[in-house]
Amino acid sequence: MQQLKARDGGAGARVAAFTLLAHVLAAAAAALVLFWCIHFRGGLALRSHDKQLIFNAHPVLMLLGLVVVAAEAILCYRSLPWATPQLVSRDARKKAHLALHAVGLALGGLGIYAVFKFHVEAGIPNLYSLHSWIGITTISLYALHWLTAFLTFFFPGAAPATRRSAVPWHALLGLLIFALAVGNAQLGFLEKLTFLQGPPVRLAKYGAEALLVNFTALVVLLLGVAVVLATANVDSTRYTAM
Amino acid sequence: MQQLKARDGGAGARVAAFTLLAHVLAAAAAALVLFWCIHFRGGLALRSHDKQLIFNAHPVLMLLGLVVVAAEAILCYRSLPWATPQLVSRDARKKAHLALHAVGLALGGLGIYAVFKFHVEAGIPNLYSLHSWIGITTISLYALHWLTAFLTFFFPGAAPATRRSAVPWHALLGLLIFALAVGNAQLGFLEKLTFLQGPPVRLAKYGAEALLVNFTALVVLLLGVAVVLATANVDSTRYTAM
Repeated sequence: MQQLKARDGGAGARVAAFTLLAHVLAAAAAALVLFWCIHFRGGLALRSHDKQLIFNAHPVLMLLGLVVVAAEAILCYRSLPWATPQLVSRDARKKAHLALHAVGLALGGLGIYAVFKFHVEAGIPNLYSLHSWIGITTISLYALHWLTAFLTFFFPGAAPATRRSAVPWHALLGLLIFALAVGNAQLGFLEKLTFLQGPPVRLAKYGAEALLVNFTALVVLLLGVAVVLATANVDSTRYTAM
Repeated sequence: MQQLKARDGGAGARVAAFTLLAHVLAAAAAALVLFWCIHFRGGLALRSHDKQLIFNAHPVLMLLGLVVVAAEAILCYRSLPWATPQLVSRDARKKAHLALHAVGLALGGLGIYAVFKFHVEAGIPNLYSLHSWIGITTISLYALHWLTAFLTFFFPGAAPATRRSAVPWHALLGLLIFALAVGNAQLGFLEKLTFLQGPPVRLAKYGAEALLVNFTALVVLLLGVAVVLATANVDSTRYTAM
């Protein structure tokens, strides 16, 4: 640990600060998306005569699953080693990382189900938008990544040399998939708001709801940046060029 | 160099492959956005009675500047050292990196000018959408990042120790700004296509133009992923945990 700290060149404070910021932003994002769907859009349901309520389950479940819980899953494994290594064993963190990502994936899967159900019951075509294309790709990659990691690092587990070379790829590809989820949440917020600003709703372009949705999206974007900055490897010893 | 290669553990082939892929995707993205604006949208202009032609300059200039030229600027500095270090000196690469980013920034600035000009002349409100908010933030960060790097690494240049600790942050924050540009291009494509699919144009949801725009966006997204994978530090020696 001492050796790791020395190599990391005082990165502990940076990691702790961005981890704390990420927790705050994750809580804020969850609260904002719930407030939007309940206060402005009338609530959410998986079964209802008001089909809009079925749609509303989609942004809430996707954001909670693939962004908020996923962020916590990433942070609980990647940041704790530096911040408070003595409090939680690596094995416990690894199991929490795996379990939280499973919860994120399940919530995301339910969120996808909600939007397909809404489209079918409201007679709207499926899978024509960029948001839907990237979304299906992202959740598929998320599931594949989880399964590959389960087999490699948990059960049955690959040989130590394979694990050692796989772990930085696992971290990099995992962050890329998380970035896709954060980016696709932006697409979802923009798409929904653009629909609402057109006929028949014609929501005001600078109104309270429009500002709320845009600010929620920005909180989600900042959460993504905070998670990257809390987990990125900033190692000046790698560079010979300046 | 030998030392760097040894530490990098055969990353040369990975870097070369993703760099080549990125070049191909950058050329494809440029061709696709031009084809879309010229063939489907009637061309582009900075002055015209047809205000849509002024709009069309926006996606072309933004994509060429903040994504295509920016990608080439990143690749020419980060990837060449491993791929063909003997062909181009570090000083030449550094100047090309700086100059290409200046060109990217100038094209991006002109693209922002085009969309404001379109809004003003067509009587459309400015800066209400998530795409515009993230766009203004991204180009401001891009300009600030360029200026800071110019002062730190080029003229007058900071002390060697400062440069050494600044360079991994320059690389990480630069890639984050590039990711914002790639993500915001996705928002732009989705927003424009959603407008076109509503009244009065009512473009077909699965028609040729809709598919072209979505595929162009996906090529841009893959370009972003390829640039990250060509430049990311995948260093298994950093990890003690598996």
